[in-house]
Amino acid sequence: MSEKMRAVIKAKAAPGAEMAMVDIPQVGAGEVLVKVKATSICGTDVHIYNWDPWARSRIKPPMVFGHEFAGEIVELGDGVTTLKPGDYVSAETHIVCHVCYQCRTGRAHICKDVSIVGVDRPGCFAEYISIPEGNVWLNPLDMPPEVASIQEPFGNAVHAALSTELAGKTVLVTGCGPIGLMAIGIARAAGAAAVYATEVAPYRLALASRMAPDLALNPTEVDVVNEIRTATDGLGVDVLLEMSGNPSAIHEGFAVLRSGGYAALLGLPSGPVELDLSDEIIFKGATVYGVAGRKMWETWYQTRALLSSGAVDVSPIITHRLRLEEFEQGLKLMSTGQCGKVVLFL
Amino acid sequence: MSEKMRAVIKAKAAPGAEMAMVDIPQVGAGEVLVKVKATSICGTDVHIYNWDPWARSRIKPPMVFGHEFAGEIVELGDGVTTLKPGDYVSAETHIVCHVCYQCRTGRAHICKDVSIVGVDRPGCFAEYISIPEGNVWLNPLDMPPEVASIQEPFGNAVHAALSTELAGKTVLVTGCGPIGLMAIGIARAAGAAAVYATEVAPYRLALASRMAPDLALNPTEVDVVNEIRTATDGLGVDVLLEMSGNPSAIHEGFAVLRSGGYAALLGLPSGPVELDLSDEIIFKGATVYGVAGRKMWETWYQTRALLSSGAVDVSPIITHRLRLEEFEQGLKLMSTGQCGKVVLFL
Amino acid sequence: MSEKMRAVIKAKAAPGAEMAMVDIPQVGAGEVLVKVKATSICGTDVHIYNWDPWARSRIKPPMVFGHEFAGEIVELGDGVTTLKPGDYVSAETHIVCHVCYQCRTGRAHICKDVSIVGVDRPGCFAEYISIPEGNVWLNPLDMPPEVASIQEPFGNAVHAALSTELAGKTVLVTGCGPIGLMAIGIARAAGAAAVYATEVAPYRLALASRMAPDLALNPTEVDVVNEIRTATDGLGVDVLLEMSGNPSAIHEGFAVLRSGGYAALLGLPSGPVELDLSDEIIFKGATVYGVAGRKMWETWYQTRALLSSGAVDVSPIITHRLRLEEFEQGLKLMSTGQCGKVVLFL
Amino acid sequence: MSEKMRAVIKAKAAPGAEMAMVDIPQVGAGEVLVKVKATSICGTDVHIYNWDPWARSRIKPPMVFGHEFAGEIVELGDGVTTLKPGDYVSAETHIVCHVCYQCRTGRAHICKDVSIVGVDRPGCFAEYISIPEGNVWLNPLDMPPEVASIQEPFGNAVHAALSTELAGKTVLVTGCGPIGLMAIGIARAAGAAAVYATEVAPYRLALASRMAPDLALNPTEVDVVNEIRTATDGLGVDVLLEMSGNPSAIHEGFAVLRSGGYAALLGLPSGPVELDLSDEIIFKGATVYGVAGRKMWETWYQTRALLSSGAVDVSPIITHRLRLEEFEQGLKLMSTGQCGKVVLFL
Repeated sequence: MSEKMRAVIKAKAAPGAEMAMVDIPQVGAGEVLVKVKATSICGTDVHIYNWDPWARSRIKPPMVFGHEFAGEIVELGDGVTTLKPGDYVSAETHIVCHVCYQCRTGRAHICKDVSIVGVDRPGCFAEYISIPEGNVWLNPLDMPPEVASIQEPFGNAVHAALSTELAGKTVLVTGCGPIGLMAIGIARAAGAAAVYATEVAPYRLALASRMAPDLALNPTEVDVVNEIRTATDGLGVDVLLEMSGNPSAIHEGFAVLRSGGYAALLGLPSGPVELDLSDEIIFKGATVYGVAGRKMWETWYQTRALLSSGAVDVSPIITHRLRLEEFEQGLKLMSTGQCGKVVLFL
Repeated sequence: MSEKMRAVIKAKAAPGAEMAMVDIPQVGAGEVLVKVKATSICGTDVHIYNWDPWARSRIKPPMVFGHEFAGEIVELGDGVTTLKPGDYVSAETHIVCHVCYQCRTGRAHICKDVSIVGVDRPGCFAEYISIPEGNVWLNPLDMPPEVASIQEPFGNAVHAALSTELAGKTVLVTGCGPIGLMAIGIARAAGAAAVYATEVAPYRLALASRMAPDLALNPTEVDVVNEIRTATDGLGVDVLLEMSGNPSAIHEGFAVLRSGGYAALLGLPSGPVELDLSDEIIFKGATVYGVAGRKMWETWYQTRALLSSGAVDVSPIITHRLRLEEFEQGLKLMSTGQCGKVVLFL
Repeated sequence: MSEKMRAVIKAKAAPGAEMAMVDIPQVGAGEVLVKVKATSICGTDVHIYNWDPWARSRIKPPMVFGHEFAGEIVELGDGVTTLKPGDYVSAETHIVCHVCYQCRTGRAHICKDVSIVGVDRPGCFAEYISIPEGNVWLNPLDMPPEVASIQEPFGNAVHAALSTELAGKTVLVTGCGPIGLMAIGIARAAGAAAVYATEVAPYRLALASRMAPDLALNPTEVDVVNEIRTATDGLGVDVLLEMSGNPSAIHEGFAVLRSGGYAALLGLPSGPVELDLSDEIIFKGATVYGVAGRKMWETWYQTRALLSSGAVDVSPIITHRLRLEEFEQGLKLMSTGQCGKVVLFL
Repeated sequence: MSEKMRAVIKAKAAPGAEMAMVDIPQVGAGEVLVKVKATSICGTDVHIYNWDPWARSRIKPPMVFGHEFAGEIVELGDGVTTLKPGDYVSAETHIVCHVCYQCRTGRAHICKDVSIVGVDRPGCFAEYISIPEGNVWLNPLDMPPEVASIQEPFGNAVHAALSTELAGKTVLVTGCGPIGLMAIGIARAAGAAAVYATEVAPYRLALASRMAPDLALNPTEVDVVNEIRTATDGLGVDVLLEMSGNPSAIHEGFAVLRSGGYAALLGLPSGPVELDLSDEIIFKGATVYGVAGRKMWETWYQTRALLSSGAVDVSPIITHRLRLEEFEQGLKLMSTGQCGKVVLFL
């Protein structure tokens, strides 16, 4: 295909983004071309749109961005054997080297030489995207495109939540952005004894309530530490799923983590965080796990299982359904936090 | 107290049991006396009633038997400090030595010198039972006595089911006696992607259906291996929870266990079982775990969490509520398999 | 290359093997051609040589067999990017599908569609072997070819031994063929508190002693169960590494496995084995793991670490160094058990 | 016994300590009286001696301090059943509540209501100490008293080092005080592929070298991060054992921890530490574990196994053998860091 397609591009090294007609991607050897049906907006896309320091250091305009999607394979590159045109797919967005120690020992999600779709190579805010065969995930035919598209961030939440045992455990989710909201649902589905959630933004706290946590608390209004200690008979929670990256939330989380508890850190702080390692981790005998990406492919199998079985209902999380042309509205919604997940349809 | 109480006793070394007036137990140092409100019948009690070879080798009549119960503390022995009269309690029935390697390393459930309530010392088919302080479990005040009583066998199911990760996994439960029925509910509560159950007795298979498995199959009527392979797209199940002790069920279970799968064995075969270790375990890279008793006390905390939160509804499992005087009817029901859990009230 | 090479082939469907001149293998896309320096004999090769029932059902003569080797890359097929001529290599002999559930979740060693070098495709008892790029393992330059060649079976022993924690634990190795001998060394290197070994063949028991176990026992001469119980103060061993496939050894192993212990089964019984699941696994709360192949590639990294650091000295294990032409002597030695590992040089 | 004994006491709320004659401790119910043969000095004792802010907030003079010892039981309190006069013992110094969630689920080392020997109750820098039966550990008869005494801190090192798998792994120990020195030995004994150590004090770096690490580096003299990256082919270490509590060492440790690596934190920083959670933990997919005390009693079994088998030789670590009367010299040596472990004999 040498025709043009509609795409949302970062046209130049400045805030903003624009709709443009660009070449449909070449399909290299070992790649497939996917016609995008739905694509969803990630916080990373907002960073690129806003052209923050991280984006400035990493993104090379002009470039199509976006990395969460669902679509249909329309063309196969040379040597592709496991897929065929018509397949309904999404994709893992970490393109890994397959030969480093991590890749060779079942830890490809922390490949030492990763490249990321929509960041280091053209993304999916477009009619078509080209993607390596090895990154493609076959979707169940009855999964709606908007759900299939958000499997990627849902996978982050799955990776975090299922990195420890949750059945019969008390869980605190700090930060109720889309991944935090997903984590509430996953923890409930996995048999948590109780799920508590904290979030400072009223809109998102209201969304959190729709995921049916036992408590949804606003730290600017109540003493979160006190509330959760009371709710857990003074013991504290077994598991902390830190989804905010906010230092206050991190400290509140460790304050109510019981001795011997487990903390999965996923939210990225915008700078260094002062930790009292003795009290927050060491005396407590806590275990802390850093959540990077999605386990390839354990996380995707778990994600499909939780979504296909209906164990987690993501309908409260997908708050906005827009057309690709309305990308700017979506990105601005994401900037304000007045939304859950925003999906763009083509 | 030196008065008499009603009790169901194994009066002599022969099949049967009888109601009798016996001395209320002495409360030794470190023990508490519990007034029993509800007690439930275990398969072990049926073995004692029927006086099978195991019972003949282990039980010393005359003795009160029974070991699952809920009741209220009415008297404290010397040195008891953590409990008080009026406490609403159940009990772990393995009385352990506290000093062997297993006890000293968090594995008291496999204590090398265990003694069992209702087997090696007087049980709870009676108005009162004396039990060591360290074996007592405080029940939530709002838990009905019949539910509190069955926490002990529920704990066996919890121990088996939560000995591996279930969220997003496919699970086969072979054998739908009470513990198998519980395991279905626990697996669902813990986020299993699908739960399959097998059982030869139609009554119990019907009960199994009420626990909402994805499939409830009778191996005498359908080709279980074929059905489950089809349901799992040829992959087989991730987890086998073997609750029957039946050789055919064990072989069917291993046949559909996927490579790298996990099997928890709880059902006790009545004799040796011929295994094809190469195909059933080794080439498969399977992990097999023997489930003995309940982890002390991790299992009890998990049990309380799953029951108190309503994550598992045991109401379909408790099929018969009788008076203590109707013990014989209960034991006979258990012998026939025409029941789930039978609870005797006082 | 279209020239001929020397090779040991299974020429026809009957016992025996012969030296012949055959075509040097074609190097397909994604493959490399390796000039073999050393190749070692596995029990599987003996089965092929003896033409036992398994071999008859699986092997298609005429075919070069053998699968353990070290050599030098001399030619690259199309598309090979991570290797170069002159590389000093060995290879994982399981050629896996990369797309099944097991392969996609870090468990490629139990790929559902595996093909094996020297069994399902031409092997390495030859001057040259062609092997997929993805199966090649780079050897340290200072590792002698005979050691590099036996990394593959050493990996089986590593997979078994390091599938559980050994530091400070007591370990029983049942069966002192080459893999059992390696397991003794690995257990010692990993900090086992004590290592006990059993073997019925005097020659191999003598080799076992050279690996410095705390006890090396012949079950035909002493009461193994009694000896090991005594040595462990009646507790039994923490870990059983079953390397014999012999039913008596399996029963002895479970008899002395302590409650809560761990058993890795690697030896393949020649038929079904009657197990008393209640006493041997369930009441004991034992964990049993089936060891298939080598974890790709965790096992290979561990293997290299243990061999390169000198933590395990395999020199007592390599008992015979022959020329490729002396293959028949080597295969016969292996049949009799009057050897450790036999290496053929080219 | 109502006689007097020699003891080192914190006589008043000020720096220093003194030798005094005090009452031999009463032996309460469930306690035993031990005649101390050897006692060793911990960093905690130095804090008490120096009367630092922590000591001021916690210690109530006058009090005998010290908590590491070996000795002989000379008297039993009421109800003691598992010990007898003449037993050669040491003790776990955390006296736990036995009833909290942690205690009841195999995590007594993080009991929520712990009291510590020599801190919250009289210690062992004395001729006699009274200790609860449940805290006593039987020593092997052939273990020298100075080795038996240092089992307690050795246990901290064991808890840290064996909290993850070390066989075939690369390990960095940051901080070579006595526990760091022990960790080097344990990591070697457990089959680490390579052990690297860092320490700023030349005396202790020299001691470290005697424990035979692959590299012993002084961060004030060399670029530790660069050296270790080079030594690990750019990959970084698999395991970090942080024994210093020093922020620079912590950052160096995380800088060279490979993606997916494991860090055990034991050293206590003197204040908050600024961490770049994104780079140091999250993107790396690292696991961080806080090491508090010793697992009761898994750690003690492991400790005995490693010391009795000779797998770890602690002779380079015990640098000073003094008389109890020379306690001040010992405490001053510990303050300067010009020592390994200092043992006081009686």
